[in-house]
Amino acid sequence: MLKGIFPPIATPFIADELSIKNLEFNISKWNEYDLGGYVVMGSNGESAFLTFEEKVQLVSAVKKYSARDKIIIAGTGSDSIKDTIKLTKACAENGADYALVLTPSFYKSKMNDAAMIDYFSTVADSSTIPVIIYNVPKFTGISISSAAVATLAEHSNIVGLKNSTENLAELMNFVSNTPDDFSVLVGTASVLYPGLCGGASGGIVALANIAPQQCLELYNLSISGKHDEALILQNSLIEPNKAVTAQYGVAGLKAALDKLGYYGGKPRKPLQTLNDYEIKDLESVIDILSETYC
Amino acid sequence: MLKGIFPPIATPFIADELSIKNLEFNISKWNEYDLGGYVVMGSNGESAFLTFEEKVQLVSAVKKYSARDKIIIAGTGSDSIKDTIKLTKACAENGADYALVLTPSFYKSKMNDAAMIDYFSTVADSSTIPVIIYNVPKFTGISISSAAVATLAEHSNIVGLKNSTENLAELMNFVSNTPDDFSVLVGTASVLYPGLCGGASGGIVALANIAPQQCLELYNLSISGKHDEALILQNSLIEPNKAVTAQYGVAGLKAALDKLGYYGGKPRKPLQTLNDYEIKDLESVIDILSETYC
Amino acid sequence: MLKGIFPPIATPFIADELSIKNLEFNISKWNEYDLGGYVVMGSNGESAFLTFEEKVQLVSAVKKYSARDKIIIAGTGSDSIKDTIKLTKACAENGADYALVLTPSFYKSKMNDAAMIDYFSTVADSSTIPVIIYNVPKFTGISISSAAVATLAEHSNIVGLKNSTENLAELMNFVSNTPDDFSVLVGTASVLYPGLCGGASGGIVALANIAPQQCLELYNLSISGKHDEALILQNSLIEPNKAVTAQYGVAGLKAALDKLGYYGGKPRKPLQTLNDYEIKDLESVIDILSETYC
Amino acid sequence: MLKGIFPPIATPFIADELSIKNLEFNISKWNEYDLGGYVVMGSNGESAFLTFEEKVQLVSAVKKYSARDKIIIAGTGSDSIKDTIKLTKACAENGADYALVLTPSFYKSKMNDAAMIDYFSTVADSSTIPVIIYNVPKFTGISISSAAVATLAEHSNIVGLKNSTENLAELMNFVSNTPDDFSVLVGTASVLYPGLCGGASGGIVALANIAPQQCLELYNLSISGKHDEALILQNSLIEPNKAVTAQYGVAGLKAALDKLGYYGGKPRKPLQTLNDYEIKDLESVIDILSETYC
Repeated sequence: MLKGIFPPIATPFIADELSIKNLEFNISKWNEYDLGGYVVMGSNGESAFLTFEEKVQLVSAVKKYSARDKIIIAGTGSDSIKDTIKLTKACAENGADYALVLTPSFYKSKMNDAAMIDYFSTVADSSTIPVIIYNVPKFTGISISSAAVATLAEHSNIVGLKNSTENLAELMNFVSNTPDDFSVLVGTASVLYPGLCGGASGGIVALANIAPQQCLELYNLSISGKHDEALILQNSLIEPNKAVTAQYGVAGLKAALDKLGYYGGKPRKPLQTLNDYEIKDLESVIDILSETYC
Repeated sequence: MLKGIFPPIATPFIADELSIKNLEFNISKWNEYDLGGYVVMGSNGESAFLTFEEKVQLVSAVKKYSARDKIIIAGTGSDSIKDTIKLTKACAENGADYALVLTPSFYKSKMNDAAMIDYFSTVADSSTIPVIIYNVPKFTGISISSAAVATLAEHSNIVGLKNSTENLAELMNFVSNTPDDFSVLVGTASVLYPGLCGGASGGIVALANIAPQQCLELYNLSISGKHDEALILQNSLIEPNKAVTAQYGVAGLKAALDKLGYYGGKPRKPLQTLNDYEIKDLESVIDILSETYC
Repeated sequence: MLKGIFPPIATPFIADELSIKNLEFNISKWNEYDLGGYVVMGSNGESAFLTFEEKVQLVSAVKKYSARDKIIIAGTGSDSIKDTIKLTKACAENGADYALVLTPSFYKSKMNDAAMIDYFSTVADSSTIPVIIYNVPKFTGISISSAAVATLAEHSNIVGLKNSTENLAELMNFVSNTPDDFSVLVGTASVLYPGLCGGASGGIVALANIAPQQCLELYNLSISGKHDEALILQNSLIEPNKAVTAQYGVAGLKAALDKLGYYGGKPRKPLQTLNDYEIKDLESVIDILSETYC
Repeated sequence: MLKGIFPPIATPFIADELSIKNLEFNISKWNEYDLGGYVVMGSNGESAFLTFEEKVQLVSAVKKYSARDKIIIAGTGSDSIKDTIKLTKACAENGADYALVLTPSFYKSKMNDAAMIDYFSTVADSSTIPVIIYNVPKFTGISISSAAVATLAEHSNIVGLKNSTENLAELMNFVSNTPDDFSVLVGTASVLYPGLCGGASGGIVALANIAPQQCLELYNLSISGKHDEALILQNSLIEPNKAVTAQYGVAGLKAALDKLGYYGGKPRKPLQTLNDYEIKDLESVIDILSETYC
């Protein structure tokens, strides 16, 4: 089972090129927390902008600098089954423990249950590492059904799902229609507490890049039955989480990393960096975070 | 505070006319449960198809046949402030304790925070009974913001909000941005348990028409900290709830009422009655409900 | 056949009450143009905010002040068949020549072809004046199918459809699937020229409130085969049209009326009046209109 | 200027591998028509499922087998600027005359005008062949604004836009906000005629794979001012076009190719092949096409 908190880590660039040095710096800081591991090449890692070679280099580096007990999850999915299989293989050979595979989404109206089952079964059949389904409608424009997930959960090499929506009924459907050892992971910190109430086993949440301790605390309060405290902490994280996700996106996450002693830097084009007003607004939200909890 | 479970009751017709006799029959059965009260002329009450005169008649009848301790909440909202004020007044005079007022939604792109605040303030100013905001994007196509709700919660005559979405982040935002004595009510049984975890004070859920005891049990388990049992019960209610809401709608709810010893009957046009296949499918889901819990 | 240009006229208020005097003033000016007639209580007439009594008063007044040859089309539709029939009857008795009936839309997912056919057939059966279907997805959230319209076009008392989208394939489908004497009317000035190319017989367009002559000219150029001139004029109307529809809505339309010598006034709440910046921006667009064409 | 009709050609596979032999066969047949050229690796070419190496191989083959006067347009866009530049370079070196570049779309809410201008300017700066913007909201979930296109049209290496929507106002905005020598191409046969009325210079339409002569005839009727005939032909193409696009997609297009004497074959996974009922339905529509026009 995948349990605990996993940050989908930002990818550091200097002058638009990978900065492995800054990646090492960030990971050395995250290693100090009780995080379950790292997701590399997730949506917050700007996977969409990275080349094959860069992705392989990134996985290797994350593996190299991670503390020994950290699980490495690599984002490897694209619409192309051939490319997905190739990248999954390369990531497995370079240190990835799991592959996080985005739902195919280009031909949206044709991505019915049969298509989803066909896609993930084919990818999982050929993968040497276990596959986690990545459902993120805000980026893909579609959502995989709980019926398709129920079928896919029977595949011995498909072991979990990251659900990046705030819809709790959908999340609970994924949980209740899959076996107990299938890991449903909350994909956004805004519903981490209710998601854990609903049966999720952990979270892959962008906020864990900048607030790992708070996310871990929220996880621990939730699973140990301290519901009142969990709800208070959950509510205090809503605004900071919004600032580094829906509101300012990856550029905001990177600006917050810079502010908080990590290396953030600029996102790749076409993502735009924040302007001065946005930076100031973001920092005021992050400041509140530091004050209320550390 | 509005606490507990409130069914948004179906409106019985015979030959397309209100059947007060069947309404009395249903209410007499619901009166046996520890429900907080009744919502009359909600979405499940086919409010959209009722005339002003019918609505007033309905409220009077519900008041007349309800057990003395039941709270009566009347759906009175429409885009027209004049009509909303007139209907709210008439309902207040005929037994309604609260008015449940739909967000205005015709001019969707113009229903910004200023418009929402203007609308609800004007309605609440003129109402002799407290107002509950009704947010139901699947029917209105829009969602009121937590900022607008935070402002409206300061109005002494606006006391709560029914949120009919499965988005828990949105629900928790409503809760955390309003005072403790502002009642946020879960609007769909599919997220009743996580909604109560997230700070909701109760639920107005269609499923309570046909499964009042199960909804009450889920409420009680949730608020008394029996989370494991609550989650199991919550998951068992997902399919029956879906059958009488998203899947088959009001026609399905009425068919289920008929099946379970209440009076359902036909919905008004243009809603269509279920065909034989749909009835059979619905009943198989309802049967499961009866077997697993009674 | 309904041919030509029909403005869906704004409803004038003074201190939130109907101003029949200002209505007469506006109509007297519009009477000078070769418009086919007037649509009263359309979306631009704030129908959603008017009471039954106000609607009847409005139709009577429009009939009274219209030039004798003008066709009067009254918006009478709502989700309630009972209310729609009652209002249609009252409008017919007070001067309306046609009823423009909005598609029912509250229970969006249930408004399939059977529901649409049921609704419009029932309304048309009971109406003494011919019915025009009003399809406006930006307000209703749904679109009637061309198959449903094809069936409804066989009803002797359903004579046309106003299509308020910019989707030309949809409009041409409505035209090609209905008899030649069924009138498909373009519902927005932004596609008036291509809509007429595609077989529409005329237009009910908000822009005709403030630019009747330009709309008529565009209509005449289009139907007389002067395509190059039509396209140039069409393109010049895009910005002014956008300003009084999608961008600033009814409040913008009313501000433009005020600017151009008609009576506009304020929209009813919850619609908000334009702020100074918006007024200035709107007027700059209207000025361009006056300069390029008059 | 890009004028005339360009089919976005299907990519033939045998046993899931590229079949250059069947590509040659299809192209030899298309060469007989007065098509402006071919789009390779468009949405209908299953670009999303092809590897880099396969794409380069495809472009080379299309160049090799195309009649000398045919323009070769290669789909080269993805969210990654690095990958887009690399593929565009390779395509240019292997026979492509133009690059058709999909709007970036993964981070939908961040793809504002600044991001779009940044992306396309960067790609166009580095490309040795002219760039055509590819706007296809049904697959990307977003639409580029006419303001962004107006700015991009000033770039000497950005020469056109393919607009794959049925929204004529949007298309006319693109035309009227760009210079006369900027080519706006209709992206779907369902609005080819009104699109040409609205100022488009040609069409890249899936239907031209199976009905090149009808599409050319529609183009010629439209630009030569034979509007009545054009509209009749346009309407006759709506059903066949729908069958090979929205309804059955690439699998339908390929089944139609098989039926009509071309090589179609199966689409790549996860796209599913049609079942027997769907094949029969598709063929009945294609038969009508053959009967009414050849």
